[in-house]
Amino acid sequence: MSKYSFTDDYSEGAHPDVLSALVKTNFSQHGAYGNDDPSEQARDYIRHHLGAPDVAVHFVPSGTSANAISIGASLRPHEAVIAANSGHIVVRETGAVEATGHKIIVVEPEPKTGKLTPAIIEQALDENWHFPHMAKPRLVYISQATEIGTIYSKAELKALRDLCTANGLLLFMDGARLPVALASPKNDLALKDVLELTDMFWIGGTKNGALLGEAIIIKDSKLAAEFGFLVKQHGCLLAKTWVMGVQFAALFEKQLYLSIAAHANRMALKLSEGVLQAGGELVADVETNQVFAILEEDLVKDLQESFGFYIWSKMENKEASRPKRVVIRLVTSWATDEEQVTRFITRIKSSRRKRHLEAGESNESAPKRNALGVVEA
Amino acid sequence: MSKYSFTDDYSEGAHPDVLSALVKTNFSQHGAYGNDDPSEQARDYIRHHLGAPDVAVHFVPSGTSANAISIGASLRPHEAVIAANSGHIVVRETGAVEATGHKIIVVEPEPKTGKLTPAIIEQALDENWHFPHMAKPRLVYISQATEIGTIYSKAELKALRDLCTANGLLLFMDGARLPVALASPKNDLALKDVLELTDMFWIGGTKNGALLGEAIIIKDSKLAAEFGFLVKQHGCLLAKTWVMGVQFAALFEKQLYLSIAAHANRMALKLSEGVLQAGGELVADVETNQVFAILEEDLVKDLQESFGFYIWSKMENKEASRPKRVVIRLVTSWATDEEQVTRFITRIKSSRRKRHLEAGESNESAPKRNALGVVEA
Amino acid sequence: MSKYSFTDDYSEGAHPDVLSALVKTNFSQHGAYGNDDPSEQARDYIRHHLGAPDVAVHFVPSGTSANAISIGASLRPHEAVIAANSGHIVVRETGAVEATGHKIIVVEPEPKTGKLTPAIIEQALDENWHFPHMAKPRLVYISQATEIGTIYSKAELKALRDLCTANGLLLFMDGARLPVALASPKNDLALKDVLELTDMFWIGGTKNGALLGEAIIIKDSKLAAEFGFLVKQHGCLLAKTWVMGVQFAALFEKQLYLSIAAHANRMALKLSEGVLQAGGELVADVETNQVFAILEEDLVKDLQESFGFYIWSKMENKEASRPKRVVIRLVTSWATDEEQVTRFITRIKSSRRKRHLEAGESNESAPKRNALGVVEA
Amino acid sequence: MSKYSFTDDYSEGAHPDVLSALVKTNFSQHGAYGNDDPSEQARDYIRHHLGAPDVAVHFVPSGTSANAISIGASLRPHEAVIAANSGHIVVRETGAVEATGHKIIVVEPEPKTGKLTPAIIEQALDENWHFPHMAKPRLVYISQATEIGTIYSKAELKALRDLCTANGLLLFMDGARLPVALASPKNDLALKDVLELTDMFWIGGTKNGALLGEAIIIKDSKLAAEFGFLVKQHGCLLAKTWVMGVQFAALFEKQLYLSIAAHANRMALKLSEGVLQAGGELVADVETNQVFAILEEDLVKDLQESFGFYIWSKMENKEASRPKRVVIRLVTSWATDEEQVTRFITRIKSSRRKRHLEAGESNESAPKRNALGVVEA
Repeated sequence: MSKYSFTDDYSEGAHPDVLSALVKTNFSQHGAYGNDDPSEQARDYIRHHLGAPDVAVHFVPSGTSANAISIGASLRPHEAVIAANSGHIVVRETGAVEATGHKIIVVEPEPKTGKLTPAIIEQALDENWHFPHMAKPRLVYISQATEIGTIYSKAELKALRDLCTANGLLLFMDGARLPVALASPKNDLALKDVLELTDMFWIGGTKNGALLGEAIIIKDSKLAAEFGFLVKQHGCLLAKTWVMGVQFAALFEKQLYLSIAAHANRMALKLSEGVLQAGGELVADVETNQVFAILEEDLVKDLQESFGFYIWSKMENKEASRPKRVVIRLVTSWATDEEQVTRFITRIKSSRRKRHLEAGESNESAPKRNALGVVEA
Repeated sequence: MSKYSFTDDYSEGAHPDVLSALVKTNFSQHGAYGNDDPSEQARDYIRHHLGAPDVAVHFVPSGTSANAISIGASLRPHEAVIAANSGHIVVRETGAVEATGHKIIVVEPEPKTGKLTPAIIEQALDENWHFPHMAKPRLVYISQATEIGTIYSKAELKALRDLCTANGLLLFMDGARLPVALASPKNDLALKDVLELTDMFWIGGTKNGALLGEAIIIKDSKLAAEFGFLVKQHGCLLAKTWVMGVQFAALFEKQLYLSIAAHANRMALKLSEGVLQAGGELVADVETNQVFAILEEDLVKDLQESFGFYIWSKMENKEASRPKRVVIRLVTSWATDEEQVTRFITRIKSSRRKRHLEAGESNESAPKRNALGVVEA
Repeated sequence: MSKYSFTDDYSEGAHPDVLSALVKTNFSQHGAYGNDDPSEQARDYIRHHLGAPDVAVHFVPSGTSANAISIGASLRPHEAVIAANSGHIVVRETGAVEATGHKIIVVEPEPKTGKLTPAIIEQALDENWHFPHMAKPRLVYISQATEIGTIYSKAELKALRDLCTANGLLLFMDGARLPVALASPKNDLALKDVLELTDMFWIGGTKNGALLGEAIIIKDSKLAAEFGFLVKQHGCLLAKTWVMGVQFAALFEKQLYLSIAAHANRMALKLSEGVLQAGGELVADVETNQVFAILEEDLVKDLQESFGFYIWSKMENKEASRPKRVVIRLVTSWATDEEQVTRFITRIKSSRRKRHLEAGESNESAPKRNALGVVEA
Repeated sequence: MSKYSFTDDYSEGAHPDVLSALVKTNFSQHGAYGNDDPSEQARDYIRHHLGAPDVAVHFVPSGTSANAISIGASLRPHEAVIAANSGHIVVRETGAVEATGHKIIVVEPEPKTGKLTPAIIEQALDENWHFPHMAKPRLVYISQATEIGTIYSKAELKALRDLCTANGLLLFMDGARLPVALASPKNDLALKDVLELTDMFWIGGTKNGALLGEAIIIKDSKLAAEFGFLVKQHGCLLAKTWVMGVQFAALFEKQLYLSIAAHANRMALKLSEGVLQAGGELVADVETNQVFAILEEDLVKDLQESFGFYIWSKMENKEASRPKRVVIRLVTSWATDEEQVTRFITRIKSSRRKRHLEAGESNESAPKRNALGVVEA
């Protein structure tokens, strides 16, 4: 790959410390299917961070399996999930939840944050009441960080918790990017709070410096007792589960999972500042490791010569005279090279300058930062 | 772990050459979800070994997922699988195939080999004819090597193929231990033959020197076109699929997968010879990397002090005067240390000798080799 | 039940001619599971109306089973349905389609007709492209008549057909109320057209004068060959399928299914005219046997003393000064008693008059007919 | 149908009293989806027979749906059913249980009775212990009467109950033919006992004088609260559920369900005596309404000219000199005409006599009654 990629947070392999732990344990003999010392150690470290010596911790190889197994394990056949229309389970998992037999009731999240609110969930409950002709809403699915990189505050999560408790709903958190959320400058949640305020959640390893692996945390002791069956039945109980155990042990022995996340967040913030300085706009506040930037199409084409990233969506153009703009997504990780970030910013600025000079405009007229919903700009 | 383990072929991590490939590529950027150079390279190497430039190759993290996804992808909702009662999908996968909605018609395999034969399958067809009240038999599941370590010859596989073709059945091979089968001294099948004679099969990486990963081979172009959806829906399309790609590339660039398997087979044979020399019996011929040995219970207890292995089953004791005997399973892999094999043999012989001296017996009276079905001895 | 009910079109049993056919055949011996003379006769009659001697016809006991079995039979595991958010499979079947493993992509139908259009489906296709991370749209679900009682014209259905053909989509019609659609004064579709323009559809018996039963029509010969398995597996192959056969034979021997539907439609039209005369409004044009009427809440309370019906939804009240209004649903069937319709109209008019006199208003000021979407009034 | 049929117990429609109840209520208005007076009355009558005013009773249209819904409702995703290899769910329901995702562990029933015993279940538990790699046995499926028409005594059912309780297993009874079991001369179980000794069961209406319908009885209040959702999701909550309610009310208002069953049993016993008098043998004791008779093939061909019945299986012929024999199944119901039974007996005797005269044998040499397993004679 000749271009430097900001496409996602799973381009590179394991963080050096994680890789080194893998190399160190590779030639020893370990127990199978999670009955091994490294997995037990990893579980203990995670439990320590959670302040909960009794919770069950299961390692699975992917986020989609973490979601499908957890949700499938939590619901009776007629029970449904409430999720945002942008939710990973709704638009990025090929119907994996429905494949376990469960309906997802899709709701519109809060426009500029991508979050669910108590009011949104209440409306879904109001609309799904005609029992037994409608599936019974039973579990609320949220992501932390959200799909657009924002984070729930403690107060917001508490409000969801209270709403769920009052209505007999389970609160489930997809934590594919939970570490960057916890490491966000805006964050006021501890891992313990997440445990307390949700019914089940998982912590992503794949996007946090592991080769693979997600750690599902189960509080309910009855569910915990049978969870291993469900992981196995889904084909996700790896013979060498200890390979995930070694990695999670490296991440959670001390604070590596947080320092990895902090680096990613810092790189994203730097990228976002460059975008703003170069006259771009941001779709949402950059709170974690994703930058959704609105840039002119020509500028994006220029950047694509040297960098890899997703074009997320095209903006509707309300004024024919203005140049066409697109939303691009830039993602950072433990592996993001700060020099490449600097190079990206330099490039975006010089490209912008060059194009403005050609157009005879002054840089001052560049639009200022303006948090926008993707569809409305 | 202080004892040396012959428990399974997934105690250790990656073969040194595989590990070194992982370390080498760890810090480069790769595409996601299998759209990456190492995966493409691995697929090309495998296709080269198969002599089939067009087949689809998908990497999934486990054998259970390989089976469930492949079988689920191959069947219509009312179609059923025919499998031996010892089949991995029947007794070791927590109902993963049934969880995709499909019935397994369980049949008794050939007693001393654990294999299916055309006659066995024909009988299942004869008994499952009352349509549409019975599920329609549509796919025959076999393992190579079988669950007890034996292998199908080319003629045997051809006979199954012909029976399947004549009856509109698909022939599916679970290849969790296909490499040791191909490397068996008794083997007369090439990978190309497997491709030709089956409808779908997979090659195990987990038990062949990889940290994880199985490669599913799909001939049917229509099925190949949609297989990626099914892998993803099952939660088995890893973001860092390239981690499996790198490992399969290392295994299949040349003949590493075979030399790994040959070592394992040689170690198993050596173990089995030691068992016989020490007066034990074998449940089945040792054709690959598993030894099912019948030993006296006291001897086994002695061995357990220094070695790890499964006690597979207890033998029914027909003569009250004879000592109690059990079946133990010894498994070898790329990582099996020949010194430990020697140590095991020494130990079994000396233990045997000591016990016989105590009993005043001569070693000559030890039972000779005698291939036995597990339940009949 | 002392009140006369306009609640639904399944309050009474079988049409007298259908009942008499049941009584006549009750004591004869019939074959089981659909292998019987009455079922074969019914299939022949239906095929005759369709002008298609070769299509398969299967009888199942309910609409939800007809939908779930047909859709489940038509899709591969990763394929999804496109349906309106008002679709019966979306909001009235407890997630039965999802229980077969398939995602429903929910779209907003055309506001005042409740119909899907090519543009709506195209947008769904545009939004569901990220393969294999998204389920693959494969089947479009429509109802004729729609959930709000409107009907697709031949041109509209043709446009959907063309869009589906161009995009590799199947077009599936839920015909729970197909007879009233065919008998609608606005209808320009023949049964043959429905067969030609859709890939699969079913004709409702439950709402058309039968005790139970829906007839699924399958054109595709490959699917037809296996459909019986799917009906049986779903628990919907009744031992006495001939009970449904007798009824469908009675309905389709001549034109009973249409004359039943025409009566229901005429009664609904009469009800709707009464509503308008009494100053009420209609949510949608009354094209079949359902009337969605907007009435003042007090008036509705008065009507509820003598009649049964659903309160469908409450209207948002934009002007605080205006009285609160609600949407009620009135449904007619073969059994609807015209005298009761007249009584309903008299009651609504007199109630209206009385209330206006009390309020000192003149009847002339009553709002005129105004087709409104449920949510916007 | 010109031949008189003993093929099954669902050839005719409703018992005259049931039909008359249907005709009487046909033109009244009833509530939908089981919220109606006849269904409520039927539930009350059934509860009265059970001596249990609080149990839930749900009506579904078929036995396969009763089994699949009940079992699916009772199990967690990883839990399995234990059933006899002759069980209806194993060989007559097209994998309907597996289609809900659950494995069936198939066991060999007691040879001459077709029943499960505590020892058989214990062995299944012994073989299914390797958790979480094996599905967890959780529910024992039995039929009363069994598939070969025998019945469990109170002591036998109690022994199963105790075994289940001791092992955390649910005991589920398929009661498709429960009425004939209760009416059997050998029976010592009351409906109350069935309720007490099982966790869930259902009472067949289809084979007991109804046009359709089975009544599922649910003791567990938590499961009862959600059962309606599961019935609806499965497509088995009929709009006109009251059609089943009316019929069950007629059957259970007094003792009609038992008198119907007693007639069927008496006819079967008479048939079986005729078989024995004509020198035939019986596969099993005739305890209910099914006769499995072993007859010479030529005799069967002769009977087939005037009567309909199933040829159940062919007997293996151990002595080449003896004539070929087959097992036929004769089934009786409320509708069985005693004159036809007499005619059948006359015919079998005269046919036998004629054939013996031809062969020069005396009738005295005919084999005496001999209870035989189907496969061993």
